[in-house]
Amino acid sequence: MPVDPAAPSLDAPPRPAAERPRRAFRIEATGEDDLHRARAGVIETAHGPIRTPTFVPLATKATVRTLLPAEVAELGFDIVLGNTFHLMLQPGHELIRHHGGLHRFMGWDGPIITDSGGFQVFSMGHGTVADEIKGRRGRKGQDAPAGSRSHARIESIEEEGVAFRSYVDGSRRFLSPETSMEVQAALGTDLAVVFDECTPFNVERDYTARSTERTHRWLERCLTWHERHAPGWQLVYGIVQGGVYDDLRREACQVVAASRCDAIAIGGSLGAHKDQMYEVVDWSTAELHRAAPDKPRHLLGIGDIDDLVRGVELGIDTFDCAMPTRIARHGMVLVPEPDRRWRVDLTQARWATSDEPLCDGCPCPACAHGFTRGYLHYLLRHRELTGMRLATQHNLAFVARTMAGLRRAIVDGRLAEEAAELRAGRLP
Amino acid sequence: MPVDPAAPSLDAPPRPAAERPRRAFRIEATGEDDLHRARAGVIETAHGPIRTPTFVPLATKATVRTLLPAEVAELGFDIVLGNTFHLMLQPGHELIRHHGGLHRFMGWDGPIITDSGGFQVFSMGHGTVADEIKGRRGRKGQDAPAGSRSHARIESIEEEGVAFRSYVDGSRRFLSPETSMEVQAALGTDLAVVFDECTPFNVERDYTARSTERTHRWLERCLTWHERHAPGWQLVYGIVQGGVYDDLRREACQVVAASRCDAIAIGGSLGAHKDQMYEVVDWSTAELHRAAPDKPRHLLGIGDIDDLVRGVELGIDTFDCAMPTRIARHGMVLVPEPDRRWRVDLTQARWATSDEPLCDGCPCPACAHGFTRGYLHYLLRHRELTGMRLATQHNLAFVARTMAGLRRAIVDGRLAEEAAELRAGRLP
Repeated sequence: MPVDPAAPSLDAPPRPAAERPRRAFRIEATGEDDLHRARAGVIETAHGPIRTPTFVPLATKATVRTLLPAEVAELGFDIVLGNTFHLMLQPGHELIRHHGGLHRFMGWDGPIITDSGGFQVFSMGHGTVADEIKGRRGRKGQDAPAGSRSHARIESIEEEGVAFRSYVDGSRRFLSPETSMEVQAALGTDLAVVFDECTPFNVERDYTARSTERTHRWLERCLTWHERHAPGWQLVYGIVQGGVYDDLRREACQVVAASRCDAIAIGGSLGAHKDQMYEVVDWSTAELHRAAPDKPRHLLGIGDIDDLVRGVELGIDTFDCAMPTRIARHGMVLVPEPDRRWRVDLTQARWATSDEPLCDGCPCPACAHGFTRGYLHYLLRHRELTGMRLATQHNLAFVARTMAGLRRAIVDGRLAEEAAELRAGRLP
Repeated sequence: MPVDPAAPSLDAPPRPAAERPRRAFRIEATGEDDLHRARAGVIETAHGPIRTPTFVPLATKATVRTLLPAEVAELGFDIVLGNTFHLMLQPGHELIRHHGGLHRFMGWDGPIITDSGGFQVFSMGHGTVADEIKGRRGRKGQDAPAGSRSHARIESIEEEGVAFRSYVDGSRRFLSPETSMEVQAALGTDLAVVFDECTPFNVERDYTARSTERTHRWLERCLTWHERHAPGWQLVYGIVQGGVYDDLRREACQVVAASRCDAIAIGGSLGAHKDQMYEVVDWSTAELHRAAPDKPRHLLGIGDIDDLVRGVELGIDTFDCAMPTRIARHGMVLVPEPDRRWRVDLTQARWATSDEPLCDGCPCPACAHGFTRGYLHYLLRHRELTGMRLATQHNLAFVARTMAGLRRAIVDGRLAEEAAELRAGRLP
């Protein structure tokens, strides 16, 4: 069901200011000394609280792949992330609205955040921009970007929005600030994210500056549409762009912080390597901490264990990333071994005879039931669905344990100590 | 790891008769009147009791695809079936022995039955024999038979056994009565099945007669190997062949009943349509009921709901079949609608907007959590793993509920009534 940007289907007067939650974020504790930007808190939503800092598992296509909603909650997650771009194309947001919204459709009672579709639609244009943005190259465990699908292609990028061909059926579709917010309103998610232009990391300063300005104009259009049409309880994340340029990032932080958004996401190009990413996040949270200290801060698309630790230290409240669930389906599991980038490829032949468990003290079914690495190797090497499921649960349990440890440490005033433990591969 | 038929790797003296369970099957109740061949009982195994009549879910490749062992047990199943042919090729029975046997490898503590590999190896020879044997034609929800895999082919069928090329790596392999029993001993299954020649239903009486005689010579060789080498607690199923010929079936029943096997499976060609299958089963159980009333009776590869009901009436104690789990992965779910052959294809577009549940009173997660047919349609149409898993659990729950109803009815002396209820689509 194509969306006509000129005629929003939800026609309503601006909602009264009183309907908006006065303060969605309650900070319970902050990090010690130079980690003072870090905080433990609670984001209140229409579908319950989100304890932060936390990781948001991906339910890209209205399902955390292989799992049931109850299992995701049991692992300790308060919130999942749905994908505006994919869901508007398949099964379509109007169909999901027919089913009572995304919560009822997928049977998840807790908070849901949806990204705006900006990342996906611009990935299509830039081809492998998703990898570029994160400074990655083709690696095992990467799914093909949306843009590599048969029909999919960008038709035009204008001030009004982006026209593209659907990867589902080749039909002409349109995403703009207004249509993105309209889709997210139809989905009925608790946390909507504004539509932004997402640039790859290899573009020049001038292009990045102009693109960031457009993102700010789009932010304003998103907020205007949202105020007029979206459910009163839906909160909105603005997005900070600005590439790898210090002054552009800081300026973007000021613009977004000064806007009427409820919370702030850091997106776009974070650099070519981890040190540069940490630097970009550092600039951003420093600025946001001055300009909007009470607004929750989300880091888009980042989820490596060391990045979660550093991100929390720098004052990030929430993270989302495909990595833990995606690498699981490709046979890779998270382990407390920093030297191996925290992961082991169980499809390698050397695990065939192993009777080792995955990981000590892990509450996931694979570890709790004592499945050996040898059995998991066999399942994952032959792409058995039970194996993908066990690895998915394990990886999410690993991330949940990491995040719970960080949260507890902030409350207990020992974040520096906990971060050092985690970096040394000692899980709480 | 190829198996050399001339040199069984488990070399042991014949085990003392005292080690063999005197009576593995305890009959608790029988059907009323002309349903007197039906019985409710318990098969005692080294890994616990099997309450009969019951259905045996397939764990073909050491996993009930998409599920965890605990979930299979929670649905009410006492036993699963592993596949000798597939497991000897991948990951190999020696590797499974290294991991402590199939129970420990796959984390299933209950009884396990393994088929002999006869069906699979002869399917390879006959191409689509699997369909022929059951009188089926290519239908939606059928996986490709083993023989359609790239390298796989039969090299020779001799009195000694069958030489074939592995579908895994093209290597030359050999299956014979001795090697099949050796693999099943290495797997450490509770119930082994003798190696038989499995003929398609379109072969002539003469061929069937000669083939059935070979199956009887192979039965004798299986039992001899088993007595000398297999674990004392492993029970053995003989197999009744004889095609669709009354006299051959009855003769086969007498031969197998008079042998030293612990239990009896009915295999091979059961006819071109359901009425003929019921006739073949009727001849067989009538004969077995006279000749070996105390031995458990298994019907190989049959699992449609109406076939389970009729099979139990005719005195079958256990069934196995790929159908419930296989059709689930193709988007079909079992429903109490006899007119629709008990199944609904949820991938059809007409379910997209449905907010109906799958089935009333079903304890499976899909029904218990209230997922709509519309959501399941969406998941299954797009082959989402969560959808395949929910459909698998539902279909197994449906079969479990049917079998539990039949068992209870026999104990309560109202099997005829229960069978009529089930045939009318009223589940217990």
